[in-house]
Amino acid sequence: MFVRQANLPLCEEHFPWWFERKVERTLRRYKMVGPGDRVLVAVSGGKDSSTLLSVLAELSGKMGFEVASVTLDLGIGGNSYSKLSVETAETIARKLGVEHHTVSIKDKYGFTLDEAVRAVRRPPCSLCGLIKRYALTDVAREMGFDALATGHTLNDVARFLLSSYITASLAELVRLTPVSASELPGIPRRIKPFYESLEEHIKAYADLKGLKYLRDGCPYARTAPMDFLRSFLDGLEARSPGMLNAMVRGYVKHIRPALEAYLKDKLPELRPCSKCGMPSSGDVCAFCRMRERVLERLS
Amino acid sequence: MFVRQANLPLCEEHFPWWFERKVERTLRRYKMVGPGDRVLVAVSGGKDSSTLLSVLAELSGKMGFEVASVTLDLGIGGNSYSKLSVETAETIARKLGVEHHTVSIKDKYGFTLDEAVRAVRRPPCSLCGLIKRYALTDVAREMGFDALATGHTLNDVARFLLSSYITASLAELVRLTPVSASELPGIPRRIKPFYESLEEHIKAYADLKGLKYLRDGCPYARTAPMDFLRSFLDGLEARSPGMLNAMVRGYVKHIRPALEAYLKDKLPELRPCSKCGMPSSGDVCAFCRMRERVLERLS
Repeated sequence: MFVRQANLPLCEEHFPWWFERKVERTLRRYKMVGPGDRVLVAVSGGKDSSTLLSVLAELSGKMGFEVASVTLDLGIGGNSYSKLSVETAETIARKLGVEHHTVSIKDKYGFTLDEAVRAVRRPPCSLCGLIKRYALTDVAREMGFDALATGHTLNDVARFLLSSYITASLAELVRLTPVSASELPGIPRRIKPFYESLEEHIKAYADLKGLKYLRDGCPYARTAPMDFLRSFLDGLEARSPGMLNAMVRGYVKHIRPALEAYLKDKLPELRPCSKCGMPSSGDVCAFCRMRERVLERLS
Repeated sequence: MFVRQANLPLCEEHFPWWFERKVERTLRRYKMVGPGDRVLVAVSGGKDSSTLLSVLAELSGKMGFEVASVTLDLGIGGNSYSKLSVETAETIARKLGVEHHTVSIKDKYGFTLDEAVRAVRRPPCSLCGLIKRYALTDVAREMGFDALATGHTLNDVARFLLSSYITASLAELVRLTPVSASELPGIPRRIKPFYESLEEHIKAYADLKGLKYLRDGCPYARTAPMDFLRSFLDGLEARSPGMLNAMVRGYVKHIRPALEAYLKDKLPELRPCSKCGMPSSGDVCAFCRMRERVLERLS
């Protein structure tokens, strides 16, 4: 394995060591976790989140935090895709000896993602994003976790960043942080420990560790307007190894502080949703409004 | 000619009309020129600057400003490239009936670009940028012009923007404006009337008007690290017509004001260079420092 970014040729033994140190440095650089913290890892069973659970389980002892994992059963693909996702995550957590939770959104909120897609005019991936963000934070809050960790990679962050630069969306640009502070008392902070890790390295680590992750993609993920951005960024990294990392660090160090200072008193303050108590910019949060519409159509 | 951005099919008669209106709207939107203003257009003889002179000459009567043009004889390619550039620009200005000036930088500052490239360790394009920016402003100031117009296109601006986003350069990002206000009393403002015009449309206009512009590229322009960004942006525009225009407008409307407010008291204030009186962030400006080194090596 040749790590071009660091100009390091690494053998099968030392690459996992290097990769774990890289994630550890990210955790420390952005103050993602502290000693005694209880961290809930969101695991879909796919490459990135499964590897995240494996690395955090590895680092937790040394760094003194606790790790548990959660998988949402979204009810995708008449349940066949979601079932596979749930089983894969459960197997990985069991092998790692990590406390694992499975939460069915049908049981918890009364509808599956398939039902929501049919009920609401909104692209499936956008709907799924809203549901996952809400449900994961909700579950982590109920179970009293300090932090919710997601498998967003350096490639993901660079792609969202590029897309937000092109559309000049200040509200999106200010949110692409490695750590989102707790928005209200009792709400866990959200952390992205793979903020500076390339998918190429995540995959190599997973394969060397023999992780049996889910290789099937979500059946909804057919329409991918982001693929064009993805191939540009892949090309950029191939031409100038380390460029994506430099891009997101420059964002965190220079661009975001400038935008945050400017937006300080321009963005709506978050308050508890009057229906569910989760952070909301209005009286009722976006999830509760969507849920109401879906349940109405289903009844 | 099909203008995809506006979903307009235009004939040979109406396309130039549409293109001139587009530039007129840009001039008005960003308050680039006012009635009675004297505008100096920098013309290299290439497609973009030659077309700019043609369009501004066309609009000057209606909008009530005056137009003159200037070409720098940079002494590139043992003079053969620069000679062609000067002759082409002179011919175009004569045909348009525009007052034209040719300024030899060897006569004015004591060295050619070729000599500077040999004397100073710096990429030719970066050196040429510094010399052109300085000399054009200097000449416009001496002749008492209110504004200096350059042929930077929407494609150029989008490329610089993308490059500055990737490197997270706040100082560059804040400078990519359609109008740079006068930096010191007596210094003309710099304007980019093609800020929202695509090269594809500029070329079509030039060809329909029968403009005999210089098709040869500069002999130094072999190494083009920007080509990779260029092809990504071309692809973006092809997939979503109007995207580049939206990108630069979003920058002007949202991103730049945020960065400018943040940088307000962080960037060094400009003052007259102690040698030449032109705007400088230090005691002696970058041009005078470079010039001194070049003249030393030549003597």
